[in-house]
Amino acid sequence: MPKTVTKRREKRPAAGLDLRMTRRVVVEGVLPQVDGGRFPVKRVAGDQVVVTADVFADGHDVLAAALLFRKAGDRDWQETPMALLDNDRWSGRFVVDALGRYEYTVEGWIDRFESWRHELTKKFEAGQDVSSELLEGAALIRNTGDPALSRIASDLEEAGRTQRARVVVALSEDLRAWMGRFADRSRATRFDRELAVIVERDRARFGAWYEMFPRSAGTDPTRSATFDEAAERLPYVAGMGFDVLYLPPIHPIGQSFRKGRNNTLEATAADPGSPWAIGADAGGHTAVDPALGTIDDFDRFVESARRHGLEIALDLAYQASPDHPYVGEHPEWFRHRPDGSIKYAENPPKKYQDIYPFNFESDAWQSLWSELKRVIEFWIEHGVKIFRVDNPHTKPFRFWEWALADIRRRHPDTIFLSEAFTRPKVMRYLAKVGFSQSYTYFTWRNTAAELTEYFTELTQTDVREYMRPNLFTNTPDILHAYLQRGGRPAFQTRLILAATLGASYGIYSGFELFENVPVKEGSEEYLDSEKYQIRIRDFDRAGSLAGTISRVNAIRREHPALQHDWGLQFHDSDNASLLCYSKRSPDERDTVLVIVNVDPFNMQHGFVRAPLTDWGVPSDSRIEVTDLLSGERYSWRGEWNYVRLDPQGRMAHILDVQIPAVRSTHD
Amino acid sequence: MPKTVTKRREKRPAAGLDLRMTRRVVVEGVLPQVDGGRFPVKRVAGDQVVVTADVFADGHDVLAAALLFRKAGDRDWQETPMALLDNDRWSGRFVVDALGRYEYTVEGWIDRFESWRHELTKKFEAGQDVSSELLEGAALIRNTGDPALSRIASDLEEAGRTQRARVVVALSEDLRAWMGRFADRSRATRFDRELAVIVERDRARFGAWYEMFPRSAGTDPTRSATFDEAAERLPYVAGMGFDVLYLPPIHPIGQSFRKGRNNTLEATAADPGSPWAIGADAGGHTAVDPALGTIDDFDRFVESARRHGLEIALDLAYQASPDHPYVGEHPEWFRHRPDGSIKYAENPPKKYQDIYPFNFESDAWQSLWSELKRVIEFWIEHGVKIFRVDNPHTKPFRFWEWALADIRRRHPDTIFLSEAFTRPKVMRYLAKVGFSQSYTYFTWRNTAAELTEYFTELTQTDVREYMRPNLFTNTPDILHAYLQRGGRPAFQTRLILAATLGASYGIYSGFELFENVPVKEGSEEYLDSEKYQIRIRDFDRAGSLAGTISRVNAIRREHPALQHDWGLQFHDSDNASLLCYSKRSPDERDTVLVIVNVDPFNMQHGFVRAPLTDWGVPSDSRIEVTDLLSGERYSWRGEWNYVRLDPQGRMAHILDVQIPAVRSTHD
Repeated sequence: MPKTVTKRREKRPAAGLDLRMTRRVVVEGVLPQVDGGRFPVKRVAGDQVVVTADVFADGHDVLAAALLFRKAGDRDWQETPMALLDNDRWSGRFVVDALGRYEYTVEGWIDRFESWRHELTKKFEAGQDVSSELLEGAALIRNTGDPALSRIASDLEEAGRTQRARVVVALSEDLRAWMGRFADRSRATRFDRELAVIVERDRARFGAWYEMFPRSAGTDPTRSATFDEAAERLPYVAGMGFDVLYLPPIHPIGQSFRKGRNNTLEATAADPGSPWAIGADAGGHTAVDPALGTIDDFDRFVESARRHGLEIALDLAYQASPDHPYVGEHPEWFRHRPDGSIKYAENPPKKYQDIYPFNFESDAWQSLWSELKRVIEFWIEHGVKIFRVDNPHTKPFRFWEWALADIRRRHPDTIFLSEAFTRPKVMRYLAKVGFSQSYTYFTWRNTAAELTEYFTELTQTDVREYMRPNLFTNTPDILHAYLQRGGRPAFQTRLILAATLGASYGIYSGFELFENVPVKEGSEEYLDSEKYQIRIRDFDRAGSLAGTISRVNAIRREHPALQHDWGLQFHDSDNASLLCYSKRSPDERDTVLVIVNVDPFNMQHGFVRAPLTDWGVPSDSRIEVTDLLSGERYSWRGEWNYVRLDPQGRMAHILDVQIPAVRSTHD
Repeated sequence: MPKTVTKRREKRPAAGLDLRMTRRVVVEGVLPQVDGGRFPVKRVAGDQVVVTADVFADGHDVLAAALLFRKAGDRDWQETPMALLDNDRWSGRFVVDALGRYEYTVEGWIDRFESWRHELTKKFEAGQDVSSELLEGAALIRNTGDPALSRIASDLEEAGRTQRARVVVALSEDLRAWMGRFADRSRATRFDRELAVIVERDRARFGAWYEMFPRSAGTDPTRSATFDEAAERLPYVAGMGFDVLYLPPIHPIGQSFRKGRNNTLEATAADPGSPWAIGADAGGHTAVDPALGTIDDFDRFVESARRHGLEIALDLAYQASPDHPYVGEHPEWFRHRPDGSIKYAENPPKKYQDIYPFNFESDAWQSLWSELKRVIEFWIEHGVKIFRVDNPHTKPFRFWEWALADIRRRHPDTIFLSEAFTRPKVMRYLAKVGFSQSYTYFTWRNTAAELTEYFTELTQTDVREYMRPNLFTNTPDILHAYLQRGGRPAFQTRLILAATLGASYGIYSGFELFENVPVKEGSEEYLDSEKYQIRIRDFDRAGSLAGTISRVNAIRREHPALQHDWGLQFHDSDNASLLCYSKRSPDERDTVLVIVNVDPFNMQHGFVRAPLTDWGVPSDSRIEVTDLLSGERYSWRGEWNYVRLDPQGRMAHILDVQIPAVRSTHD
């Protein structure tokens, strides 16, 4: 006799079988998501957050899914339905309109009514008897407990009516909509993590930066200009269309081991020292250099900039000169050598005796960290909401994560730019822990192939969810050989690349004057670097790039396509020196096509390909393009069009593309 | 007067600043990892688990990292050092030698001694005074508390010695090794998740399967063969070199709504019914069909198979015929229609009145689930350790996750093959929740391009971490048009593709006899399908594929390269009908190159490219290859070599590649 199951039918305690196991729906692969939800993604106010997820179950039931979202701190979720794309992928979206942190997750469930409706439809269309199905449906409807629905349930049960009549009621769109409100979500599956998005203001995503040493803003190279004198340069900067004016450190500068011109070890009495050697008798990170003025002068300068439409960004350089008040008051915040002296900065065998790094691992780390955060708060109180952070990669990530989150909780409009030029994962991690924007390798990407690869990575992979590039053409530390050798065409090319590849970009003062002399052959340091001396420039000089910069910044303000990074796409070119790319605004109403000659020495010409079919028009369409730099108009036919860019004339086209609203009629 | 920091120097309570925040090292991107650690990866006993991770910190300190692992349930971790690959990526490995579950994670820390050693080296080499550094090092060494080391510390401090002599001591490899044992890991960062690996026996990864209906194993088409008769076919199956003999359900078959030949609705008294209509008076899932014999007969059959080197795999089909004992004893385990009758299976408008699905969401789900798991345990008690699970995608994922994990805890040598032909994410999820192996889309991938794309996905993406393909050339449900039309060459091609692309593969009985007649044009169902009738075959027929199958299976057993899936690589071919790929064993000692003509109708010839440089030899090397099917030897020179495969002769080469041990001397 074969054994049968009947012999062991006692109900055994079902170990580990709790009700959560009856949730049949799987929710996984929710995007956007950074490191399994460890870090938030980034958006700016007004953005849509498009969320996708894999939602599926066993069997053939019809599913439903909702995107849940809330402002952090809210108890209740808001929700919006998700739609099935294909291959079990669902999509939904919500708008983030307030600054700060939002949370989101995804819930999926079996839609009993839709499943039933689907089955009923198929059977009825196949001419099968559906009386049993109608009764099942009636039970589903009655289960809602809704009195109005209860009457419909009775209709479905009413054997006196024809089956067809009852099916018409069962399948009505009204009933469907109504039943949607009573979905049984008791066994819904919620994604096992709550993901977060940090919402910043628009400037975190889009802005043109100008870097200027205020002490060089005067007319006398032997003394520091004051804030009041620097204020006189504001119309010039604002006139070029910049949004942010970034100042290197404005604090008192140490005397001990002060560096002389061109980074020499012996400074003369006349040398002003490096602004990054922060701290002297007059104070430290919350003081202003008396040579620039008082804190009240600074306040006035900030206000004056504001009136010119410029926002001030300060440098946050967490290090001290040997003369910094911290050194005497908080020796415990520094590392000490066996002889008791404080360790200066080193990159063996190089020594930086004018700089003491903080010891973030000091036993007194908590008071140090708190004080450093207070520095930020101090400047926020003085109207500064943008900080360019010097070398954040030499301070602990946890410090930044803590300090930036804390500052943002009270001042969600604060923006932090990470000045880290280091290994890629370290740069990305700084973005993950909270920096709004990041310096990039842009200065070292000069060929079309390098630019294509790098900006595809930055704007078309998940890196874009947390890292926003800010492209500087140059900095006081970086004068790339391309600029040193390429002359005016190189400056034109780099300006246009920065301003159109990046929604955020910047130039450091002097760029517009084509300053290109390095301290020595093979160095990226400027000769007579402004880091160590005051430099007076003739900004009104004929032939300056200022006019082009003004035009480019105006184009940026007029074209939403250039105010976003994600709409970037590179296009084919039959000449490796002609880089062709387009940008589209999120609503796709604005399209800008850019072609740049990256060879500053030679005329380059060839055919580039406009992605007509990507733009929804036939590949043989005629499109009208207008060069936003020159005002010239061209009528292009088909995808491949001829371009010629010559260092003797122009280095780039920035083309406004008018995409035909309707499909071409093959005129 | 500018404000200075001195005004607010009181120590404020540092909100949120706990000691964990002083951990400067980041550990992220640990691989392998499935869905953030939600699911284990899969390995077999003896495998190495290679773990990589991004480990980095702020600043320029030297880091160290360790891979931590343990058998689940162990309290203590074992550990092995990780090595830096490049770009902050580290790697380590451990061997899993026991069946069951292992856990692993990664820890990284700042290596103070190495950091100091690095700095000392650089400064000393630059000719700088390092007396201060020597004292710092002495402190580091003394901190270990180790008496022997303490003496070395004294040596470093001894100002009487030359600096060079002290540096020699400081930089000695002995000291370095010794200090490695005292690393200060108090602020080490451990990856925030413990990841898991499920270790199965070798058969989960490698095996050749043969599917056979035992009732067809006799000589009389009017009655079921018995297990004893089926045992007489074991030498035939074993002789072909198969490892696993898989039997469709062997349980009593229902009478109600029994299907007749070719799936007709009216069965005659002589029709044996579908084995998947499980359950009758004689019992259900833990009974054997009396026509096959008794449970003792089955036990004897299993033992007989074992003696032939064959392991029996049973079909696990969780559904009931209307006559199943469960129906009367546990009506609560089924869905009911409004009239009280039990709902039969449907795929509207199709009805399967001979099958009642279980209601996994029944109020009595716990007793149902427990009972279904007991079915597995029952057969394990009868010597069965491999289960081919019928349609797992129509049962809740959570059920499988629970049942398979529970079974494995007590019987870690149990293997489950998922027979799900459905959407890709559902198939993958079943693999994630615990199935050892999965059926695939292989039968529907017939061109070289389709095969290349699909097997690249299966073997070269992270899918391979949890999903092991088992490639069936055919099944009782799937006779692909390629086999219907392609004649003997098609069968040869598909056999060799399955056996060499997959470490696990299978054929369903009749394949070796080139059975290729569908029930009707356009159908993948067999004519006179064995699902509904007994089919007696002449396996000894001249011209059977059995000889080739034996040869192919022997080659598989001799070549470790063919026993693993991950070593697959596709190679260039100048003829789209010639598919070329190689497989290498994990130790790279065994290399097999396969070229298959996927066009069963025409001779195809052309050049294929052997990846000589990937194999570590110059691209113009001479290599010796031996066709393992024909025994012919060829001497190939350079990468591109000519191949000709003709349906009139052979459809494939399976080449044993002898890679020169030393670099070619350009003979």
